[in-house]
Amino acid sequence: MSEKIRIGIAGYGNLGRGVEVAIEKNPDMSLVGIFSRRDPSQVTPLRETTPVFSMETLTERTADIDVLILCGGSKSDLPEQGPALAALFNTVDSFDTHARIPEYFDAVDAPAKAAGKTALISAGWDPGMFSINRLYAEALLPDGETYTFWGRGLSQGHSDAVRRIPGVAGAVQYTIPSDAAMDAVRSGARPTLATNEKHTRECYVVLADGADAAEVEQAIVTMPHYFDEYDTTVHFISADELARDHSAMPHGGVVIHSGETSDGTSQVVEYGLTLSSNPEFTASVLVTYARAVFRLSAQGQHGAVTVLDVPPSLLSPKSPATLRAELL
Amino acid sequence: MSEKIRIGIAGYGNLGRGVEVAIEKNPDMSLVGIFSRRDPSQVTPLRETTPVFSMETLTERTADIDVLILCGGSKSDLPEQGPALAALFNTVDSFDTHARIPEYFDAVDAPAKAAGKTALISAGWDPGMFSINRLYAEALLPDGETYTFWGRGLSQGHSDAVRRIPGVAGAVQYTIPSDAAMDAVRSGARPTLATNEKHTRECYVVLADGADAAEVEQAIVTMPHYFDEYDTTVHFISADELARDHSAMPHGGVVIHSGETSDGTSQVVEYGLTLSSNPEFTASVLVTYARAVFRLSAQGQHGAVTVLDVPPSLLSPKSPATLRAELL
Repeated sequence: MSEKIRIGIAGYGNLGRGVEVAIEKNPDMSLVGIFSRRDPSQVTPLRETTPVFSMETLTERTADIDVLILCGGSKSDLPEQGPALAALFNTVDSFDTHARIPEYFDAVDAPAKAAGKTALISAGWDPGMFSINRLYAEALLPDGETYTFWGRGLSQGHSDAVRRIPGVAGAVQYTIPSDAAMDAVRSGARPTLATNEKHTRECYVVLADGADAAEVEQAIVTMPHYFDEYDTTVHFISADELARDHSAMPHGGVVIHSGETSDGTSQVVEYGLTLSSNPEFTASVLVTYARAVFRLSAQGQHGAVTVLDVPPSLLSPKSPATLRAELL
Repeated sequence: MSEKIRIGIAGYGNLGRGVEVAIEKNPDMSLVGIFSRRDPSQVTPLRETTPVFSMETLTERTADIDVLILCGGSKSDLPEQGPALAALFNTVDSFDTHARIPEYFDAVDAPAKAAGKTALISAGWDPGMFSINRLYAEALLPDGETYTFWGRGLSQGHSDAVRRIPGVAGAVQYTIPSDAAMDAVRSGARPTLATNEKHTRECYVVLADGADAAEVEQAIVTMPHYFDEYDTTVHFISADELARDHSAMPHGGVVIHSGETSDGTSQVVEYGLTLSSNPEFTASVLVTYARAVFRLSAQGQHGAVTVLDVPPSLLSPKSPATLRAELL
């Protein structure tokens, strides 16, 4: 029997917890442990048997971990951790600030290549599975348009961004797609849709003591990359309401591509996700791509890569012959 | 400016016509011509400017064609042409007899490897894009079930199979999915569905003069791989009705995977196609994979491959850096 792929988790929030349970669904993997910046005695893993270590001890564990899954946030954690840890480990992360992916790719690529490591960036579902589906659809139907609709769902990246604003004690953000816009796209009509015709954003915010609501609202709606292009509504609620009504983390969305293969011959491709738990699904994507990273590393493909570079067959524990027989 | 990828079409039916028009949508490709077993003077291409040659002249054209797209049928054409032509050209085909893909893969792999050619088999949408989506979903959510529903649509493979039965002068076959079954799957319930609970098959058949309807019907409903596992209804109609009511070739379907990432946490992935022209879409898939085959061949990856082995990025004319910036 072959050895299991040994996984480490760097950072233990919702995403790290999702990785912890996702590894249980993959019998070809084993969890070395959680590495946290907090005092390990203060971290309570979902499973009693999961070891917790200080993030500082990671440098001593390079021989024990085949792939390290980085579970920090995109705004401040990954820009530092991604390049630093790709010099020590094969890594997978979920860097999701779309506009900054090219610079992040370069920042991770150099240390990974120098160290002979493989670093897969920006896995998850968007960027991630949605990106893959945009690529497939656009390549198959070049005379066409691709539309992405998100939600209705709670966006972790956007919620985190709101929570970092001074004066915010707690917050969630929901992304809401327009049914009329989706129906127009599915009809093959290829409408021109402004960003704010496709979705709206809704924030539920708990103010910190003494914070100014108008200032906080202004800071949210003008935030670059996250909110400035959207119609954003901000609701101020109590901490009790936040805990009671907004603790689930559903999400999802669709990528729809409508094109023509000849004059008047409409072809529509749609990929959709309906997720009860966004962080658990994102974590499952990271864990699956950890398997591919392990194999790419063994093949000598070093440096930064993305989900667009990975052959589907590398994601499955099954052999190529089994995949051909069962799935083709 | 780089040279265009030079494509040849081997076989000129509905699929070959689809390839002819699909190449027009891909400015990095050029069409060398159609190669037909018929007398070239008897073949009328969709575009006046498309050259038509005898299939026999293919052996003289190995230096002129980068990728040959095989547009013959799976039942009798490809089992002979696939292995023979993979010894001379990089090839792409749409071999779609699911149960025989492993043996076909081996039959094509040996001559392709020996000749230093790359042969991508079984492209299209099922096998093809649906296979890819089954793999992704199953790898991401291993604690889950995958369901494929086809239609409502006209299946070319099944229609061809019916047409080859003695006593059949003309025929089409429609595959019809069950709405109740699809809704049950989308709910996350993971129902156990027998083949005949998911779809029915409907055939519209024109009998040849003197043919026995009962014999023809029996030959259809008992045909292995194609009909024997399904509830099949056979309607006998006139040649005029066939031409009037059944000349469009719509198709489509969905691959739905429902799984759990932890107890009670449901996650549903769905990939769907709504196709006005099945052969034109299938042809678009073949043409897109011809680009990937051209690149795999240049990289020295010889032998038989499938869509499961191809990184998404190899399908696009865009550079990896552009794909990361635009699609991730």
